[in-house]
Amino acid sequence: MYRSHTCGELKNQHSGQSVTLAGWVQTVRKFGAITFVDLRDRYGITQLLFGEEMSAQLDAQPLGREFVLQAKGKVSERSSKNANIPTGDIEIVVSEFSILNKSATPPFTIQDDTDGGDDIRMKYRFLDLRRNAVKKNLELRYAVSRSTRNYLHENNFMDIETPFLIKSTPEGARDFVVPSRMNAGQFYALPQSPQTFKQLLMVSGYDRYYQIVKCFRDEDLRADRQPEFTQIDCEMAFVEQEDILNMFENLIKRIFKDVKGIDYTDKVERMNWEDAMWNYGNDKPDIRFGMKISNLKFPSHTFPSQKNISALIDGANFAVFDGAETVLAIAAPGCSEYTRKQTDELTEWVKRPQIGMKGLVYIKCNTDGTFKSSVDKFYSEEKLKAIAESADAKSGDLVLVLAGAEERTRKATSELRLEMGKRLGFRKDDEFRLLWVLDFPLFEYAEEDNRWVARHHPFTSPKPSDIEVMINNNPVIENAAEYLKHPYANIKANAYDMVLNGNEIGGGSIRIFQRGLQEKMFAALGMSEEESLHKFGFLLGAFEYGAPPHGGIAFGFDRLCSILGGSESIRDFIAFPKNNSGRDVMLDAPGPIDEKQFEELQIKLNLK
Amino acid sequence: MYRSHTCGELKNQHSGQSVTLAGWVQTVRKFGAITFVDLRDRYGITQLLFGEEMSAQLDAQPLGREFVLQAKGKVSERSSKNANIPTGDIEIVVSEFSILNKSATPPFTIQDDTDGGDDIRMKYRFLDLRRNAVKKNLELRYAVSRSTRNYLHENNFMDIETPFLIKSTPEGARDFVVPSRMNAGQFYALPQSPQTFKQLLMVSGYDRYYQIVKCFRDEDLRADRQPEFTQIDCEMAFVEQEDILNMFENLIKRIFKDVKGIDYTDKVERMNWEDAMWNYGNDKPDIRFGMKISNLKFPSHTFPSQKNISALIDGANFAVFDGAETVLAIAAPGCSEYTRKQTDELTEWVKRPQIGMKGLVYIKCNTDGTFKSSVDKFYSEEKLKAIAESADAKSGDLVLVLAGAEERTRKATSELRLEMGKRLGFRKDDEFRLLWVLDFPLFEYAEEDNRWVARHHPFTSPKPSDIEVMINNNPVIENAAEYLKHPYANIKANAYDMVLNGNEIGGGSIRIFQRGLQEKMFAALGMSEEESLHKFGFLLGAFEYGAPPHGGIAFGFDRLCSILGGSESIRDFIAFPKNNSGRDVMLDAPGPIDEKQFEELQIKLNLK
Repeated sequence: MYRSHTCGELKNQHSGQSVTLAGWVQTVRKFGAITFVDLRDRYGITQLLFGEEMSAQLDAQPLGREFVLQAKGKVSERSSKNANIPTGDIEIVVSEFSILNKSATPPFTIQDDTDGGDDIRMKYRFLDLRRNAVKKNLELRYAVSRSTRNYLHENNFMDIETPFLIKSTPEGARDFVVPSRMNAGQFYALPQSPQTFKQLLMVSGYDRYYQIVKCFRDEDLRADRQPEFTQIDCEMAFVEQEDILNMFENLIKRIFKDVKGIDYTDKVERMNWEDAMWNYGNDKPDIRFGMKISNLKFPSHTFPSQKNISALIDGANFAVFDGAETVLAIAAPGCSEYTRKQTDELTEWVKRPQIGMKGLVYIKCNTDGTFKSSVDKFYSEEKLKAIAESADAKSGDLVLVLAGAEERTRKATSELRLEMGKRLGFRKDDEFRLLWVLDFPLFEYAEEDNRWVARHHPFTSPKPSDIEVMINNNPVIENAAEYLKHPYANIKANAYDMVLNGNEIGGGSIRIFQRGLQEKMFAALGMSEEESLHKFGFLLGAFEYGAPPHGGIAFGFDRLCSILGGSESIRDFIAFPKNNSGRDVMLDAPGPIDEKQFEELQIKLNLK
Repeated sequence: MYRSHTCGELKNQHSGQSVTLAGWVQTVRKFGAITFVDLRDRYGITQLLFGEEMSAQLDAQPLGREFVLQAKGKVSERSSKNANIPTGDIEIVVSEFSILNKSATPPFTIQDDTDGGDDIRMKYRFLDLRRNAVKKNLELRYAVSRSTRNYLHENNFMDIETPFLIKSTPEGARDFVVPSRMNAGQFYALPQSPQTFKQLLMVSGYDRYYQIVKCFRDEDLRADRQPEFTQIDCEMAFVEQEDILNMFENLIKRIFKDVKGIDYTDKVERMNWEDAMWNYGNDKPDIRFGMKISNLKFPSHTFPSQKNISALIDGANFAVFDGAETVLAIAAPGCSEYTRKQTDELTEWVKRPQIGMKGLVYIKCNTDGTFKSSVDKFYSEEKLKAIAESADAKSGDLVLVLAGAEERTRKATSELRLEMGKRLGFRKDDEFRLLWVLDFPLFEYAEEDNRWVARHHPFTSPKPSDIEVMINNNPVIENAAEYLKHPYANIKANAYDMVLNGNEIGGGSIRIFQRGLQEKMFAALGMSEEESLHKFGFLLGAFEYGAPPHGGIAFGFDRLCSILGGSESIRDFIAFPKNNSGRDVMLDAPGPIDEKQFEELQIKLNLK
């Protein structure tokens, strides 16, 4: 061993001990004839004192930043202590040292606030990983995985590895494929998730399975997506939805406790999908704050069970609202005194292409009881007051109203709510609010093919009460224009998403476990019998031999870690991430392969 | 939840309780008007008693093997107890039941001794996994991984995930490659091991890393190799060989304790590579038993430090020995009374193509003090005695002598020793003997290219005392015939293998951490500067920025589990293994891909 202690553990109680440390040179400071060196390792920083004689030796072989240094000496109490670091009470009076390796000058500083840009840090990721900010993220990641494993172990889950070289069944996302040399002309696929394997394990009787496992999707990478990502993948047999919700909200609570020291004693809220869309405009609402949407107007098919209150805005001859499919309002607390400049800026914000609205209507709920609006000439103060009240606005609030096509407007209102929540400080990094979103539609309508697609995935069961509806009706949509009247349009899924601070961190479902129902599902998705047998024959076959009722969930591990770490970017929580073109710029991968490899695999390029 | 208890937990103390169980029907036995059903789940088997009324209901919906059944009833003490199972004291008097799913008749019986052959069990792996024999293996595997993680965690190791989509650097084994759609014409490779990444992590200061991780090698599959396999992958910084040996022999001891309940208190033996080859004929000796090899004759270059004792066999005009490069003997304890039939059978055994010898010479060390041999007419009894003594034979032993070309004869003698050890009961499944093999040669000579290849891998450091030899000599072999005189031939590696019961379960080395030495290594392996920069530029670059001394080890997880489980086959310890053609016969993978996939990836087949 090159060291007797780490750079993070020596304290006053070690005074007088002879120790050996090894680590990286963080800083070198000369004071006349003596030299101070801060030595860094994974565990901390310890100050080395080179007296006159040692300093003279140092001059002969000067240290630079990031040199690897081994130093022997005595622990000594410091005269001027540093209360900011755990080892701040002591220093090592060096009696012997050895430079284990030199270092070129790093292309950026190894500090929390580095001067390195994203590109250079990714190219030299091995140096970036030395920064305390990145190290803390990877430590958090390990703590989350450790906590997860402990909790699941205590609850009788078994970690069972599923294969990585599987079969390509393009369904949903694109597969990465791997040419097989031993089976020329054939390909493996890398798993998008272990979904079918964990279901097979349930059929096999391993009633509580988990894995923290890499998954692969060959999709065009939006910001903060990775072609390979990690899932906490779980499945249970002999359970109903309630069992899964209890088991896994307690997993997340345990992670809060183990990793963040937070006792999450609140009941985890539950919300059905329709209410989420109605009140927050999306299916993963951030419930750290209110600002619920007031639905002033909406097309009748979107929320059949809700009463349209468009009376509040109708009859004013305001063409923007009258011509809009949807009009939605939110109240921004305490913003009634926004200046013209501020409201103009908000208007510009909603007109950005990412949001895509044409404009923004506001109503100021002044503290003197008056109401002032950008549409004063169309609406009386009484009307403005009624609209404001519908949005739950209080005196001093600013009501923001968006109008336009349903989907875009709802999405924009949701985004505006989040943006205002952020600006107003309602979205605190250190506050965590969990939410289950339930009762998703089982199907979505795919206009281009005039057929159903699975909203979650083809293995999700309908609600027990909807199974008969699914079995007893033909999935074919005879009249495309009236697809909403098809019985399948109202089937609810036995599915659930876990939402943390406005991010979907996990999702799952109770699965279909009956061959007949699974076949009906494949048919509903437009798969021929032949195709479903070719792709999923092994699963259909397994369902014939005593498949138990089962369900599960998968958490996005990278995302979960980034939220717990208070960051927007999952990349900061991955040791060796890829960029938005799927490249590892450090390795310079992907890259060309040899002619011999092409020959052995019996493939060739066919570049356009 | 479909159950209140599992099928493995109810005992007499639960008598009188109302419970609900769910599981699979193992057996149905009718006794007149009543019926007994054994219900099975992951945790055990519980007997259900269907009284007259319930039995009548059963008749209306008869149960079959592997049906999924939910049953409610009262726990009741049995009249005739079954001491063989934990729940044998009780039964459930069923008051209500529900068939959750039916089952077709399984293609083989779900029992420890199944009637299913290998092929059918692999095709229906989801049923095979239900068998207790297979379940125990996967439970053992999970226990090993759990124990490993706990030990490494307690020793400050961090689990850090490394990427799966990396760069192809064909070196040693063949890479599996993955065409990149977003970077057309380029390919990722799947990692053969996280070797370079774990070294980068050491450069980054994460001084104790581990991962239990899938690795991939596209090799022709010998029996019991899998294209994807799992490694316990570890690396430490600021360590020397001794530190690694201590850390990881304690890991294996901990696994013995946690998984098998064995206190391995013996010191782990150490043997250098030359001694292993000399005494056992291979580099992973099974030291559960003796039967060391007596080297009667060998070419001088193979063991330069050993004295040739061919005087024992020379001068007898026995052409077989005189013409042989190598003559080796072992003593089989207590076998002196082998019949002619038995020695003939052994002779046939060594003549099998897998062993490849021309014949076998034996010397019987009779208990009456005489010596009888198949080569009596060439060797006096005195000579025979001397040969027998060289092999450490005792009265009553049978000395077996093989002669021929060095490599083949040594291998054959090693195999014969293992075979005899097995026949004589010296290789017990429940006895575990650990061994470190040390001081491997750093290089092997590749005749076809007249160059050096790395025996372990290109990142292994020479012994500290050999570094100068490596730096100061030109690796080029001027005279192929005299390659053994090249200074590189005698360089020893700072490498170690852990051997358990004659199987290499892990191997590793202290790594090169200096750019200059690493470049010299690449050059020694015949890599041009351009090639080494193209393939490993990121690592050479990392070594410039303060790389610490480091080393590590990787254990073959599948193999380790199979040995602990007392099995020869790693496949039994993998949930979804592939066959010897790399096929998953359950999935029917690999398989063809769609035309659309070819187009998107811009590749096409080029079948011969």
